[in-house]
Amino acid sequence: MHAKDLPGLRMLHPELISMENEVFRVYLGWTAVLVLKIFAMGILTGLTRFVTATFANPEDLMSPKLKVKFDDPNVERVRRAHRNDLENIVPFFIIGLLYTLTNPSVFLAVNLFRAVGIARIVHTIVYAVVVLPQPSRALSFFVALGATVYMALQVIAAAAF
Amino acid sequence: MHAKDLPGLRMLHPELISMENEVFRVYLGWTAVLVLKIFAMGILTGLTRFVTATFANPEDLMSPKLKVKFDDPNVERVRRAHRNDLENIVPFFIIGLLYTLTNPSVFLAVNLFRAVGIARIVHTIVYAVVVLPQPSRALSFFVALGATVYMALQVIAAAAF
Amino acid sequence: MHAKDLPGLRMLHPELISMENEVFRVYLGWTAVLVLKIFAMGILTGLTRFVTATFANPEDLMSPKLKVKFDDPNVERVRRAHRNDLENIVPFFIIGLLYTLTNPSVFLAVNLFRAVGIARIVHTIVYAVVVLPQPSRALSFFVALGATVYMALQVIAAAAF
Repeated sequence: MHAKDLPGLRMLHPELISMENEVFRVYLGWTAVLVLKIFAMGILTGLTRFVTATFANPEDLMSPKLKVKFDDPNVERVRRAHRNDLENIVPFFIIGLLYTLTNPSVFLAVNLFRAVGIARIVHTIVYAVVVLPQPSRALSFFVALGATVYMALQVIAAAAF
Repeated sequence: MHAKDLPGLRMLHPELISMENEVFRVYLGWTAVLVLKIFAMGILTGLTRFVTATFANPEDLMSPKLKVKFDDPNVERVRRAHRNDLENIVPFFIIGLLYTLTNPSVFLAVNLFRAVGIARIVHTIVYAVVVLPQPSRALSFFVALGATVYMALQVIAAAAF
Repeated sequence: MHAKDLPGLRMLHPELISMENEVFRVYLGWTAVLVLKIFAMGILTGLTRFVTATFANPEDLMSPKLKVKFDDPNVERVRRAHRNDLENIVPFFIIGLLYTLTNPSVFLAVNLFRAVGIARIVHTIVYAVVVLPQPSRALSFFVALGATVYMALQVIAAAAF
């Protein structure tokens, strides 16, 4: 089943950018949730800096006894998880939108978006909230990566043929 | 007042992607300005590397007397400001576009975009150009964050209801 | 020559988001290729971590004899190339889309997209695969930067006038 029965394979339709298109609606929801999730990492970094008194800038020091510090393992762990989000979620933002415009199967697209959204939230939890042994982080990483790579390949196929 | 009076709450309209839509036009302008602002951080990093002779790669050393260096506080400060841009401005790029498609109040949307744009430029200035004491950086950070979080919540509301 | 002859200079047309628009099709293709290229940096980081036994998290250590390590020059080089992609390719994703909506000359737009795509792939190769002496990396960096800055200026011009 497709969002819209199209006469030609090579057409993209801007009207797919509509709340009547379930694919677009689900893309919209997960994108906004993942934006909030990325921002949560910034807040978590700040909180961890306060709890561990690890500040990177002299002007941030709350007391003259403190010194700048760059090697707190908890702060660095949150920062690695945050950076991993930028590396993996941000490309999804644009590819998810372009994939929506290729008029994919609703069932497949909706579940790919869910896979990315859930896998990236799990990735953050097992990386930076409750550290779990591998392969929990690797699995969640590759589920989201695989889904996004599939979308990118579909976009290339739509652009090329 | 809304950019377009719509018959149904749950509709998005691709024709909102138009220069006749002031919300889209203001989004367009601030997005392009902020892209240039992010790029300016890359140039500033390069200039600071030259001035302080802090190069991260052996092939970048201009003289055999130099060695790679990773801990210059000025270079690292610019790099932190640059990374903070990626963490906070890039999510705005996609959420600002999707928020535009939810047909928001023109007055509110235009001022939210301005708030993000101005706050992020102030953030860079007080972080990496003329270092000012806190809470100047924290304030500019939270103004932009708050405006973008509001847009993300509106996008979730549009997707869900 | 323009993708669509428009009656007014200040109009954007959502129907430019179509496979019949060659500019959009080329944008689509290069964007998806560059998303895969960014992801390849994540895979390359992981491979380099395994080859050099450089793991950043205790839970990633494959043997009790290993310790976390942060200073392997090969891993750090790949990470710098990866971060450089986020700083430069991600802004292209959004500006390329908005530039497409300004209805640019097909010839110019297609070649700007190609310039960004090819220059960023060359940048990665000379930075993190086969390290070549400067100015190979600087040249590829500035070709992509120049093309993206041009697009951003055109978007500002379209928004302002």
